[in-house]
Formats: sequence, C-alpha cells, structure tokens
Amino acid sequence: MKKTENQMLVIFGASGDLTARKLIPALFNLYMAKQLPENFVVLGASRSNLSDEDFRNRVVFESEYLKEKIKDLKEDEINSFANKIYYEDLGGDYDTDYAPLRKRVEALKEKHNTSGNIMYYLSTPPTLYETIASNLADAGMNTQNNGWKRLIVEKPFGYSLDTAKELNDGLHKYFTEPQIYRIDHYLGKETVQNLLVTRFSNSIFEPLWNRNYIDHVEITNAERVGVEKRGGYYDKSGALRDMFQNHLLQIVSLVVMEPPIGAEAEEIRNEKVKALKSLRVMKDAETLHENTIRAQYVSSVVDGKPVKGYREEDGVDPNSTTETFAAIKFYVDNWRWHGVPFYVRTAKRMPTKVTEIVIHFKQPHHQIFSEAGMQRDNKLVIRIQPDEGILIKFGVKVPGQGFRVERANLDFYYSSLAETYVMDAYERLLLDAMQGDATLYARADEVEAAWEFVDPILNYWKEGKDVRMYGYAAGVWGPENSDELFDGHGFWRNPSENLADDPGYCVIC
Amino acid sequence: MKKTENQMLVIFGASGDLTARKLIPALFNLYMAKQLPENFVVLGASRSNLSDEDFRNRVVFESEYLKEKIKDLKEDEINSFANKIYYEDLGGDYDTDYAPLRKRVEALKEKHNTSGNIMYYLSTPPTLYETIASNLADAGMNTQNNGWKRLIVEKPFGYSLDTAKELNDGLHKYFTEPQIYRIDHYLGKETVQNLLVTRFSNSIFEPLWNRNYIDHVEITNAERVGVEKRGGYYDKSGALRDMFQNHLLQIVSLVVMEPPIGAEAEEIRNEKVKALKSLRVMKDAETLHENTIRAQYVSSVVDGKPVKGYREEDGVDPNSTTETFAAIKFYVDNWRWHGVPFYVRTAKRMPTKVTEIVIHFKQPHHQIFSEAGMQRDNKLVIRIQPDEGILIKFGVKVPGQGFRVERANLDFYYSSLAETYVMDAYERLLLDAMQGDATLYARADEVEAAWEFVDPILNYWKEGKDVRMYGYAAGVWGPENSDELFDGHGFWRNPSENLADDPGYCVIC
Repeated sequence: MKKTENQMLVIFGASGDLTARKLIPALFNLYMAKQLPENFVVLGASRSNLSDEDFRNRVVFESEYLKEKIKDLKEDEINSFANKIYYEDLGGDYDTDYAPLRKRVEALKEKHNTSGNIMYYLSTPPTLYETIASNLADAGMNTQNNGWKRLIVEKPFGYSLDTAKELNDGLHKYFTEPQIYRIDHYLGKETVQNLLVTRFSNSIFEPLWNRNYIDHVEITNAERVGVEKRGGYYDKSGALRDMFQNHLLQIVSLVVMEPPIGAEAEEIRNEKVKALKSLRVMKDAETLHENTIRAQYVSSVVDGKPVKGYREEDGVDPNSTTETFAAIKFYVDNWRWHGVPFYVRTAKRMPTKVTEIVIHFKQPHHQIFSEAGMQRDNKLVIRIQPDEGILIKFGVKVPGQGFRVERANLDFYYSSLAETYVMDAYERLLLDAMQGDATLYARADEVEAAWEFVDPILNYWKEGKDVRMYGYAAGVWGPENSDELFDGHGFWRNPSENLADDPGYCVIC
Repeated sequence: MKKTENQMLVIFGASGDLTARKLIPALFNLYMAKQLPENFVVLGASRSNLSDEDFRNRVVFESEYLKEKIKDLKEDEINSFANKIYYEDLGGDYDTDYAPLRKRVEALKEKHNTSGNIMYYLSTPPTLYETIASNLADAGMNTQNNGWKRLIVEKPFGYSLDTAKELNDGLHKYFTEPQIYRIDHYLGKETVQNLLVTRFSNSIFEPLWNRNYIDHVEITNAERVGVEKRGGYYDKSGALRDMFQNHLLQIVSLVVMEPPIGAEAEEIRNEKVKALKSLRVMKDAETLHENTIRAQYVSSVVDGKPVKGYREEDGVDPNSTTETFAAIKFYVDNWRWHGVPFYVRTAKRMPTKVTEIVIHFKQPHHQIFSEAGMQRDNKLVIRIQPDEGILIKFGVKVPGQGFRVERANLDFYYSSLAETYVMDAYERLLLDAMQGDATLYARADEVEAAWEFVDPILNYWKEGKDVRMYGYAAGVWGPENSDELFDGHGFWRNPSENLADDPGYCVIC
C-alpha cells in the first residue's frame, strides 16, 4: 500500500453539485476506510457567500448524499470528518486576487500541519481553468519549492481540437504536465482497468487479440435516461463530445493498445497515445457519410409513460441539431488491427443502461459440425456496467446423437470477488492523485489525439452538406439505419441488463 | 434424425450382469423415447437354462435396475416392451452348433417382421469372441445378403498388443471391419464428445491448441471406490489395462488429434489413429523408469471407516503386483505437440470420483502486473464427470488501487443445457450402432495403436529390474512420489467434486 502524504485539497467550484454529490462522499469513504492522510484539510472555494458552518451543513450534515452513510455514526466521528472541511468565499469572481485565499491556505496549513502539498480540484466550467491557474500563479500558489502542487481538472476538456490545445497551453503556462490530472471517471471503474489485466496478465487472450482472429470490435454505451436537467449544457455538447471523445475513446485505447513494457503511468499512457494516434482519421465527406450516424430521440411512450423528444426537453433548442445518438465505424492503422472494423456507439434514451465491449472473433475456418443456431462466431463480452463481468460465447455440443452445436456461455462476474471493497470511481481517482499516481488520468497528448479523431466528425456533422439526422423513438436501440454501418457483415448487439442474457439483434424490438 | 431400420438384437452372455444393468435399461429408455424401430426384438442367448418368461422376469419385471422406471407405468406399456424380449438357451456351451439359434432367429424374424438386420452383442469374456463369431459363420448367420449383420464387442479388447491383434484377426475371419463395433462407453459420454466440438466448432481454442501456447496437458481419472466385487478380474488386469489403454487413451486421442476434414466416422477415426500413432513409445528401461509410476492402495481409514488394502481384497493375490494407480508421462511426436509433456493418471481409492482434462497454458511471456497468487498460468479444465463442464482459470484485477492480479473462473456447466434429455452412454452407443454410425466405436487400428504404446509399459512393469511398486493410503491422491514425474515443473491438480472449487496441490491432503 502506498503512503498518502499530508496535504490540503482545495476545491474550486465547491458550491456546485459535483462537490456534494461525488467529491465529499468519496472523501468520506476514504476517511472511514482510514485512507486519508493523518493531517488533511479540504478547503472549498467558490463565488457563493458561505461560512464554514454553511458549507459543512450543505456537504455533510444536511447532505442527501451522506445521509445514509452517517445515520448510524457517533457524533464524534462525523464531527471529526466535518471539522476537516472549510470554506473560502472568492467574492463573486474567480478572476480575482488570490492573496486572501493564500492567507487562508497558510493558516489552515499551520493549524492542521498539512505540509505544503496542495491539490487544486477545478470543479468549474473549463472556461475558468486558465483564469484560476493564472491567479494561483500570480499568488505564488503554484510553486513546488515547499511541497507539491497538483491540479485536477474535470471534463469536458476542450470543445474541439483547437480549444483542447488552447486549454492545455493555457494550463501549461502555470503548471507542468506532470502536475496536471485530467479526470475521466470511466478510468476509475474497476472493470475498465480490468481490461488491461485481462489482456496482459493472461496468456490465452493476447495471442488472439489481433486481425488474424478478430473479425470486428463493438462497443456500446447506452443510457436509459434522457438529458434530464442538463438540457442546456447537453445541447451545446452532444453525444460525441459528452461520451465518445473521452470515455469511449479511452476504452478504445485500452482495447487497441500494444502491451506496455511496465505498469507505470507513463508506460501505459505512452501506449494509449500511440493507440489513439493509430485511429484512422476520416477526412473526406464520403467516408464520413458512410461511417458515422447521428440521431435524436423523439417523443414516445416508455413503460406506459409518455417521454419527451429531445427537442422538447428543457433548455434544448427546438431546432437543435445536437445528436443524442452517435455511432461511428472506424479502422485502426497499425500492424495488429489492419482491416478490423470498430463499431462504437453511445446514446441516451436507450432501452437499458449498459456499457460493454464485444470482441467478435472470426468464424472457424472450416465448418465440421452442423450448427443449431445461426451465430457461429465466438464472442468475448467485457461488461463495464452493470452486471460487471466477462462472458465468452462459445459452441458446445447439443446433447444427443450426432454433433449438433449450440452457443453457450463461459462467464465470470466481478461480483463474485466481492469480499474486497470496491471503491467508487471518484474515490479511487482522488486517492490516486493524492498519491501522485497518474495512470488513470489523461495526459495532454492523449486528449489531443482523441480530438484529432473526433474533430473531423464534428465538423462534418456541423458543416457537411445534407448530413442526415435520424430520429429514434425514446426507448429503442437508436435509428434502424444504424445497422447499415455493418454493411451486411453483422449488426449491433443489443444487450440487456444481465450479462448472460442473449441480446436481441434488431433495433426496434 | 436418422432412421433406425427394423432389426433384431441378439445378446450373447445375456444372463450376465451387463445385460440387466446396462443394456436392457438402455433399450427401455430408447423404447420410452420412441427411438426403437417399429419392428424390433431382443433375443438373449447364453448358457443358462432360462425360459422367455424367466428372462423377462429377470431383466424387466423383477429387475432392480428397471424398478424405478416402470413403477408408474401401465401394465400394457411394460408388457409391450417385455414382449419384445426372448431367450434362447445355448445348452451350456457357446461353442456349439448355432442351427437351433438360427431357427429361433428366423422364427422371431417372421413373427415380428424384423427384416434380416441383426446386431450381435457379445457380452461375454473376450476369449469367446472368436468362438461365437466362428459358430455364427458356420450357421450362415454372418452373411449380409438378406440384411446387415453387425457385431458389438465389449472391452477388454485384448490383454496386450499380441492378444489384441489375435482378437482382431480372429473376428476378421468372419466379419469385416465395418461390421465390428468395439464399444468404449467413455466415448458415449456427452462431455467426451464435446471435446471435439470445443476444439473444432470454436475459433478461439484451436489457435492456442499447440506447443506455442500449451505448457503441458494433464488428465486425471480417479475413482473413489476400490476393486469392489471385481477383485478376481481386476487382479489380472490392473489400472493400465482397465482404464488407461482404452478410455484414457481415447481421451488423449481427442485432445491430440488434428482437425478432421469432416464429422464422418472414418474421418474422425483416421485422425484418432494418427494421434495414437504419434505418442512416443517408451522403449528403454531408463525412460520407462522415469516416466511411469505404479502403486497399490494400502489399508487406511476413510471417513472414519476402515478400508482394506488392495492385497487384502477378495479375489486378489496377497502378493499381487497389479497396480491400482498408474501415472504416465509421455510426449507426442508430431509438429503440433513437440516438447509438450502429457501427464495421465488413473487410480482407485482416491479422495473423490472425477475425470478431467486440464490444459495448462504457458505463463504470460512478460509479467507487467504483480500477482496476488503464485499460479500465473491460464488453465482450461474440461470436466468429463461429475459436475460436467468447462472452466478457464484466468487473471482478473483485484479491486482497489494498483494492478494486483488474482485468479478467477470463467465457467460453463453442462447441466445448464439440461432441457435436452441427456442419453446414458449405453443408450447413445446402442442407438448409434443400430443406425450404423461407428464414430464413437474404436476401430481395429485404433485399438492396436493404443496397445503399441501401452505394451512396453506393461512389459517393463512385469519384467523390468527393480521396478518400484509404491503404496498409498486408501483415500489419498496416490503416492507422494507421483509429483516427481513433473520434474519440478508443476504437480498434479487434485480436483474436488465441484468443478469450480480450487483444488489442492499436495498429494497427502
């Protein structure tokens, strides 16, 4: 177990939803698991006028996210956690003199003996990242001569390749790349990390993990919900920016990457960047037309209840051309993956919430036995959520005379390991950053490589001629046309909540 | 579904145990499943003086093996089955004129309109096989001009290479090879047949199924019981003849064989013969000394009850040198398996009853992550019995920080397919023979190839100088020395009844 040094966590945008919903509960869990350093302080900072007391009430005592966790605890225990939490009012603007903030930090450092190690967590709109970094620098709060200074930034990290580069350049003026931790909570998921172990800690998968044996790769990220209260934000973003550019391309990079020479952060991230750079960028309109599909959900009835269409949602432009469904087919230009198509889709208002990777192996070269079902290929399904696990679809003999073959499952469920406490993604990632382990954080070049791939698609969708925008009824697997990406060589696997269930194979089921 | 032609089944040795215990119950199940041909008769023949009535009482009405099956049936139904069964007294000697038998067969054929198709089932000691075949020929009962004639023979098929050849030559004087069905009930097991499907109906196993990825192969056949009432027979046979030469080498041939060009009987059997011929025959005493281990169980206490040693069993010579435990290490001389050791053992009085194949894959070439357990290799366990299924041991990430790896199971249980009625081995094999499908029967050259491999071991054990005979306490996994075969590169996996249980790895547990 690595040691976590004494430190202070300064959260910018602390009055926002993320702090109460994710960060404080994650810290509370670390506290209960005795994973916080001995001397540790959280200082919330934002534009709201709150006292320490107000802030503690908001994120601890009266927090709906901690209610269940603290209800059976002694007052002592809760107070001991709450007393580590402070608040500093920035006076209505992040772009201000941070001298008062610095003074407060120094005072808390003295009081709690937290040393000069400081983690800045930017839980603010990205437009403020550079402002905050610059003001921190002006106040001398980025210097590492009296303890490390780290900066965690939340997604979205850029709105396009150019804006991502601007953001990186902006931060790099005040913080070095090793100081910057770009959080992608998908990488905090055990099942995502398990991808690396599945591939590189077993001798039976890696020999098959290439163009010789794999026919195609399919990744589905489906959400059951619509845009909910985030209509205003979402309408400026869309499925491609919100999920694909970050979470899904991170998963793609873990599937595609070559074996790293070691498990160190830089080794793994070097390979991930290489993987992202090897994605074949789609340049011309014809390619983009054939390999990308976007759609919006339209009003429908789901489980007997009427559901709004995307353009009717609060905060969404009634003429919006923002996609809530994105399906992309692409190739990877390297030795391992030449000619193997990848199909990746993400969408809202699907029939179920699920994220999974499906490795479709080639069919047996020579068919000896008669097959009972039509599907003859082996599949490796890696389920990120829910019902986390791994499943291999393979052929077994149907009992009885002759050699009739049927598909069966070899399966493993992550819940079967459940004696070990599984950390929530934020818990894991916060602790990693506090310990200086950047393995699960995105590096600048990784983010930019992902944007290199995504940018032309976004531009085509925005500016291309006659770009189709399909509709799909809320509660189905996207537009029927999305199977056309497969060009007759397959179709989307439409999984259910349970890993072992056989999925349907039609879009409108 | 193939059609089963009208036919008659003539069982020689019909008053023996096998007929009542296995054959009639198998026929009864086929009858209930409407798998018997419309016109069908069983004629039991042996040296006992029994009437049709006596025989029906013995194998149907008063049979302990049918009791459960018939207790809820209507009298009509039972009678309709029993009325297909007749008995012919051979008059105290199998070596006699079969003219009366022929007359009876002709009469029953007329009465039941069974056509001239006749299956002869030799459920007698092998010493009588040629005698019976010769007398059948003398009576003109082997001619196929008025319907096919087939001959099913039971194991043991030979006592050595020479005696097996004699037996084959003896039968071939009167019956052609395609008429002869050598039964090996292990091949009637669904899980054994599933080996072929696992290998050749999936694209993910065959690429790994060779010396590049497999470290070694292990096959265990363990029985919990001792010799029981078969001491007299067993003492002349031993583990190597009783289990290894036939059942286990059949399994070995299915693991080793190259993909057949089709699923026809001759294609599969051609490949099995090639596989058996590729086993490296051990010729010199040193090789035999290093790669073979034999042992006998000695008296002990199992589950609190005293258990006799082998030499104290009824019918066993008190100075017997017959092995009840045999463990053989060998190599396969072909392109696919060069340098991959096979470890095969069979024994009585083990801690549990189990038959399984374990494919041990090589360790990952390059170790990136730290491993929580010591075992780092992937294993594919194919369980023949009990708890029939397939299990892959593979590495998964231990939840928590870093990348610690732990072994987990991907598993499939044959029982999960249980909607389909699984035929008993005898049922399946009888029906196959009745339909002329010899896939699961051993061909003459197969049997001889197996003896070619086994003969030198038997000779060495019988005549070699200072050949060790170990003892092992009844109820343990054989002699401690049996791990020495692995030469430091592993040890026997000692499985429990449940496939998913992690096995112990010490002999005396």
